[in-house]
Amino acid sequence: MEQKNKVAIIGYGNIGRYALEALEAAPDMECVGIVRRNVTEPTINGYKVVNDIRQLGQVDVAILATPTRKVEEYAKQCLALGINTVDSFDIHTKIVDLRRSLDAEAKAHGAVSIISAGWDPGSDSIVRTLMESLAPRGISYTNFGPGRSMGHSVAVRAIPGVRDALSMTIPVGTGIHRRMVYVELEDGADFKTVEAAIKADAYFVNDETHVMQVPCVDELNDVGHGVNLVRKGVSGKTHNQLFEFNMKINNPALTAQVLVNMCRAALKQQPGAYTMIEIPVIDMLPGNKEDIIRHLV
Amino acid sequence: MEQKNKVAIIGYGNIGRYALEALEAAPDMECVGIVRRNVTEPTINGYKVVNDIRQLGQVDVAILATPTRKVEEYAKQCLALGINTVDSFDIHTKIVDLRRSLDAEAKAHGAVSIISAGWDPGSDSIVRTLMESLAPRGISYTNFGPGRSMGHSVAVRAIPGVRDALSMTIPVGTGIHRRMVYVELEDGADFKTVEAAIKADAYFVNDETHVMQVPCVDELNDVGHGVNLVRKGVSGKTHNQLFEFNMKINNPALTAQVLVNMCRAALKQQPGAYTMIEIPVIDMLPGNKEDIIRHLV
Repeated sequence: MEQKNKVAIIGYGNIGRYALEALEAAPDMECVGIVRRNVTEPTINGYKVVNDIRQLGQVDVAILATPTRKVEEYAKQCLALGINTVDSFDIHTKIVDLRRSLDAEAKAHGAVSIISAGWDPGSDSIVRTLMESLAPRGISYTNFGPGRSMGHSVAVRAIPGVRDALSMTIPVGTGIHRRMVYVELEDGADFKTVEAAIKADAYFVNDETHVMQVPCVDELNDVGHGVNLVRKGVSGKTHNQLFEFNMKINNPALTAQVLVNMCRAALKQQPGAYTMIEIPVIDMLPGNKEDIIRHLV
Repeated sequence: MEQKNKVAIIGYGNIGRYALEALEAAPDMECVGIVRRNVTEPTINGYKVVNDIRQLGQVDVAILATPTRKVEEYAKQCLALGINTVDSFDIHTKIVDLRRSLDAEAKAHGAVSIISAGWDPGSDSIVRTLMESLAPRGISYTNFGPGRSMGHSVAVRAIPGVRDALSMTIPVGTGIHRRMVYVELEDGADFKTVEAAIKADAYFVNDETHVMQVPCVDELNDVGHGVNLVRKGVSGKTHNQLFEFNMKINNPALTAQVLVNMCRAALKQQPGAYTMIEIPVIDMLPGNKEDIIRHLV
C-alpha cells in the first residue's frame, strides 16, 4: 500500500464534517487533524484537534471548510507554509480576484491552491465549459434547486421580527427561480409587515416570492439540492444541438467529495492557483492513469 | 487580430466536411488545406487540396478525419514532421495502446497528439469521469441513441442478399439497447433468411433486434444521435446522489466541433499523447483565461 496523502481540515462546521467522511471513504487519503479557532476537545472521532496547523506535523493539503469570506486569509497562511489548499469559495464575482491573489502566494512558496471547488462554482463549471465548447454559439441556463439558498435565508433572518427563516430556490426554467420563504416569527411580530419587507428586499424583489409562516423552521431542514444545466446551440454551422445536465444531491456531501477530489488533484499540478475548469478531470480520481482511461474514456 | 492557428484536414469524408465548417466558424483557426489520397480537384471551396501535408507549408495541427483504423499511421507521419494531431479514434478497447504508441512518437518530435476526441469516446468520457469523481462508489450507465450505429450497419451489409442496411440503436435504459434494422434486399433475396442471419450475427445476438424490409435505405438517412449518461452513487458516505447528462445532436457536426476544440487544446499541452479526460476543459475554448473563468466558473 502506498503512503496516503495527509490532509488537514480547517473549520469543522457542516462542510468540515462531511469532508472528514469523504476522507475516510477515500482509498488514498488520511485526515491528520482538524484545525479550529477554539479547541474545546482534544480529539474528534479520534482525530487531533488543534488551533494552529503547524501542530499537525506534515500536511500535504489543507481543506478550507471555513466561511467563504475567510478563505483568502486562511489560504494565504497555509500557502506561506508551503501547504497546498483547496476551498469552495462561492462568490462568483470575486473568483478571478481570489485566483490572482492566491496564485502569487502559491507560486512564491511552491504550492498549489485550487479554489471554488464545490458544485457551483465547481463541477457545474466544468459542465458549463464543456457544453459551451461543444456548441460555441448558443444560450446556456443554470437552473438551481429545489434546495435551500443560504444567502437568501440569511437575508430574511436579518429582517426585524424574524426568529428563523429558510428560503427555498425553485427552478422555473431558463435561469428563472421562484423563492419559497418559510419564516418563524418572534413573539408579537406582524406577518404582513415581515412579508412586505422580504418582498421588497434586494435578494427577492426581482423574483416571484411566496412567504409562509411556520411554527418551527428547523423542522423543514433538508440539505437536498439540485441543478439542471441546459444549452442549445450551434456546433460548427449546425444548429439545434441540445445538451442537459441534471443532478439531485445532498449538498454538503457533494461539496465535501469535490474538495477531497481536489486534494488529490492539487498534488498533481504545478505551483499556482487554479479553478476546477483548469484541472484535467482524470486528476480527480485515484489510481493508475491507464486503468482510468481503459475504464472511462 | 492575432494570427490564426493553421490547421490541415486529412481525409474529406463526412467528418472532414463538418470539420471544415467548424474551422470556418472558429474565431482563432484557419484551414490551410485538405490532404486526400487522390487529388481529383486542385481546390475545394477555395481550399488547396494536396496528397502530401508537406505541400501545405506551415501546419500547426492536423485533423485526422480518416477511417479509425488509419489513425495511427497518419498520426505518426504528422508527428514525425513535428505537426500536432487530433483524431476521433473510436475503438474503446485499443485507446490505451494507441496512446502509448503516439505518446512516444509525439515526445520524440516535440509534438502533441490528442486521441479519441469525439463525443464517445470524447466529451462523454469527460462527463463519465466527472460523475465517477462526484460519487466514487455507484453504477454508471451509458445509453446511446436513438441514432445510427455504423458498426452494426456495416455488419448487416456484409450479409448475403443485403444491398443496403441501416441499424438504429434505441436506448432502453441501464445500458441496454434495442436494434432496429432496416434492410434493402438484392433482387431475389429471401427476407426471412436475411432476418435470421442478422439475428444470429455476433453484433445482434445478445440484443433485442427487429428487422424490417424497406424499398430504399437512403431515404431513412438522418445523422441525429443522442446519449443519456446516468450515475447513482455515494459521495463520501452519503448515498443516493443522482447525476444525468443528456444530449440530442447532429453526430458528425459534434465530432467535428470537438476535433476543432482539441486543435486549440493541443497547442496548450506539453509534448505527448493525451485522451480528452487529461485535458483541462478551459483549454477547449478560445480567448483569455480570466474572461472564461469570469463567464463560466
